Amino acid sequence: MEFMLCAPTRVEWLTQALDNLDTILLDHAHCEKKAAHSALKLMYRYPERKDLVRALIPLAQEELQHFEWVNRRLDRRGVRWGHLSAPPYGQRLSQQVRRQEPGQLLDFLLISELIEARSHERLGLLACHVPDPDLQELYERLTLAEERHQALYRELALLYYPEAEVSAREQVLAQIESSILSRLHPEPRIHS
Amino acid sequence: MEFMLCAPTRVEWLTQALDNLDTILLDHAHCEKKAAHSALKLMYRYPERKDLVRALIPLAQEELQHFEWVNRRLDRRGVRWGHLSAPPYGQRLSQQVRRQEPGQLLDFLLISELIEARSHERLGLLACHVPDPDLQELYERLTLAEERHQALYRELALLYYPEAEVSAREQVLAQIESSILSRLHPEPRIHS
Repeated sequence: MEFMLCAPTRVEWLTQALDNLDTILLDHAHCEKKAAHSALKLMYRYPERKDLVRALIPLAQEELQHFEWVNRRLDRRGVRWGHLSAPPYGQRLSQQVRRQEPGQLLDFLLISELIEARSHERLGLLACHVPDPDLQELYERLTLAEERHQALYRELALLYYPEAEVSAREQVLAQIESSILSRLHPEPRIHS
Repeated sequence: MEFMLCAPTRVEWLTQALDNLDTILLDHAHCEKKAAHSALKLMYRYPERKDLVRALIPLAQEELQHFEWVNRRLDRRGVRWGHLSAPPYGQRLSQQVRRQEPGQLLDFLLISELIEARSHERLGLLACHVPDPDLQELYERLTLAEERHQALYRELALLYYPEAEVSAREQVLAQIESSILSRLHPEPRIHS
């Protein structure tokens, strides 16, 4: 399912992440919370879209569950819970959302799809490379969930837009997403 | 647990609600979504408060579940999903939140407690008076949940603030809450 990413993550991100696992874990907790929040925001904005609302309720519940799983690992590792500055990734992607419908909903869905795709890729890398078996197991489980969520966002896009339009816009956004990540953000984050 | 409400709901609200059950049900769906959103906003604002975050994750998941249950009833009754203007209730309560800590968190918690208490009372009235047994069963189940959530928000308040301060502020806010509802909002809503 990683076909939609234009450029794979380079080894420098993995090195940064493995050198700062506690910070990565704290940022990851925030990512899971944000994923639930994004789903909720879509339900607020499009209350008349039944398929969207129906699909995003269990997704948001699951993201909250993952948030709790990550929190437990923070506790086991003695990491202090708290705020953490976000990397520019999410905001730069949001800037790509067109201000008018019908394009706006498509952009929301495809950006969510892209974020899930990148998270899937990066959590998969962590699953392969973290030394701690407990974290490894967590990342493996979450990688599978990100893949499902990525597929779900794409299905929703295809429900509301013609396939050619979905694919064309996906390519544009995927190129932007990869270019945002082409320079490593100095702070270790899931999307640095 | 309804001790904290200063004034009980008057019969004119019940009449308005029973005369407009479809609108009440649609508004109710929005209320469940908003309840999940409020919990999430608290988790965003106080990421370092472990007990709060831990308690609000399952609460938010449950509110999303209730949202889905109410949505199903909308479908069974053929009610069209969509936007619905909110009554002034929530906004007026939010205006009571103090802008500074430590009072701010207490106000967030007690206003959530109050909203749960009022929802508990009103869904209980609906459970007693709706003719449809399916809706009756739904309202009974949700009434119990609102009671638990009300208790949870109070417990969180008591975790962070002295009991005397909690009770004193509760009384102030409860009076305001009842005064907001003293004039029936012309549009039928859960909190009209």
